[in-house]
Amino acid sequence: MKSIAYIENMATWREEFSFSIPIKIRFSETDMFGHVNNVSAFTYFEEARIEFLKSLNLFSKETEQNGVPVVADLQCDYHKQMYFDDRINVYVKAHQVGTTSVDLHYMAINAVDAICLTGRGRLVYVNRHTGKPVPLNDDVKRLLMKG
Amino acid sequence: MKSIAYIENMATWREEFSFSIPIKIRFSETDMFGHVNNVSAFTYFEEARIEFLKSLNLFSKETEQNGVPVVADLQCDYHKQMYFDDRINVYVKAHQVGTTSVDLHYMAINAVDAICLTGRGRLVYVNRHTGKPVPLNDDVKRLLMKG
Amino acid sequence: MKSIAYIENMATWREEFSFSIPIKIRFSETDMFGHVNNVSAFTYFEEARIEFLKSLNLFSKETEQNGVPVVADLQCDYHKQMYFDDRINVYVKAHQVGTTSVDLHYMAINAVDAICLTGRGRLVYVNRHTGKPVPLNDDVKRLLMKG
Amino acid sequence: MKSIAYIENMATWREEFSFSIPIKIRFSETDMFGHVNNVSAFTYFEEARIEFLKSLNLFSKETEQNGVPVVADLQCDYHKQMYFDDRINVYVKAHQVGTTSVDLHYMAINAVDAICLTGRGRLVYVNRHTGKPVPLNDDVKRLLMKG
Repeated sequence: MKSIAYIENMATWREEFSFSIPIKIRFSETDMFGHVNNVSAFTYFEEARIEFLKSLNLFSKETEQNGVPVVADLQCDYHKQMYFDDRINVYVKAHQVGTTSVDLHYMAINAVDAICLTGRGRLVYVNRHTGKPVPLNDDVKRLLMKG
Repeated sequence: MKSIAYIENMATWREEFSFSIPIKIRFSETDMFGHVNNVSAFTYFEEARIEFLKSLNLFSKETEQNGVPVVADLQCDYHKQMYFDDRINVYVKAHQVGTTSVDLHYMAINAVDAICLTGRGRLVYVNRHTGKPVPLNDDVKRLLMKG
Repeated sequence: MKSIAYIENMATWREEFSFSIPIKIRFSETDMFGHVNNVSAFTYFEEARIEFLKSLNLFSKETEQNGVPVVADLQCDYHKQMYFDDRINVYVKAHQVGTTSVDLHYMAINAVDAICLTGRGRLVYVNRHTGKPVPLNDDVKRLLMKG
Repeated sequence: MKSIAYIENMATWREEFSFSIPIKIRFSETDMFGHVNNVSAFTYFEEARIEFLKSLNLFSKETEQNGVPVVADLQCDYHKQMYFDDRINVYVKAHQVGTTSVDLHYMAINAVDAICLTGRGRLVYVNRHTGKPVPLNDDVKRLLMKG
């Protein structure tokens, strides 16, 4: 497996995930090359990210006073092709929690337990009205690191 | 060409269009069957519909007091496959203007002037707050029938 | 509920469905109006259609000698808005089976059992190489009418 | 502007682009937050990448004997929100050409000349049948570095 800047040790890294959602690859997500279009990886990451935040009660009207999450960057490494009708699991974990942001890591595993996608991306919490970053409170930080 | 309920005479029907937008088929809009996924037709219709309404000044903050357009139904007949990199023109016209709604017709033409898609769909104007249909004023009706 | 050409009696029509798939509305399927983009309805129909055909063993390499299914037309009536995170069930049934084609009907039901979408569309079976319609054999017809 | 690992000097980096394609933001690419969904950035990059390769005659049936391009990784930094109807220009350049791969950089500029997106991703050329990386010939390398 190729070397990836955000993964120090693949075995350890993989074991640190616990939260995941199932995704079934849709027909409209394939392209004329016969497999899943590259763009769809980021849709899967988005679904997994939102479910992860919801599971921690960090994606709701109530928590908006603590700032809304905005995607600052996203990246994906493609390891194995995925095909129509594949069932994958998309994992998410908080890799690092900063003052106003969190670095989330992603991994997609197929039915034979092989890694199809790995990725990461930073979420910044910003004030809905001013657009400025807001500090994460300690409860939120604790939730994210446990997640 | 097959018979289609909303087209009485294909030659006449085709000539009645004047407004169109160009669309270049994107790679991500193809699917594993090698041509454009069926779903994309409705994205093209949507882009054409909005540009048509904008050209008549019927899609803007200012005109919202006259109601916002809501799609009541949509349909599409598939005549010819479209492929990655094809350049098509998507035409729109108002077929019939009612008290609170307008029936729009659609046609997509490829580079060799063949019809790839035909379609139609009704837009209802509704009050943004109550969700109830609002009557189109005479200016709007006139604009739509000219469009 | 509005009158729809392909539905004679809504109560009867609704009862005739048995096959369905669950769909969870994705964040990326919403648009700036705050609810599901109209185009996504056809993605849901496509997923339901393919699963329906697969459940009858009519969507596989083995059955391709009997022709491949091609979408001839599609239509959708929008009854209720759907929102991010909604869980809907999308139903499919064969309404009418012809010599070389089948008319499929669709219905999407939300969590409070209300109809969000209804629709229909004709599938034609064509020879993969010639593109010409091929007659459905009696086994296939029987499967479709039971489905 | 935030610091980005793949950009040493933003002013120099920006000046090195010359190839670009225009993109008009579609309504269906917005989400319920009112602006462009994050995923769409990668659709724009894909369109720009393919047009860039086509402009160098590196995306065609004829050049497939030299290997087909496969996306190894992709990343995007989000600088400014984009909205429905925005017209942006998406730039591409080859940043580094290796033995079997090329590192492409991306930049999206809005109508007031502000950077909305920056990104990068590596394309590997692989043999269509074996899936193994194939060396880029000198002509291709020269074309990519000029592009």
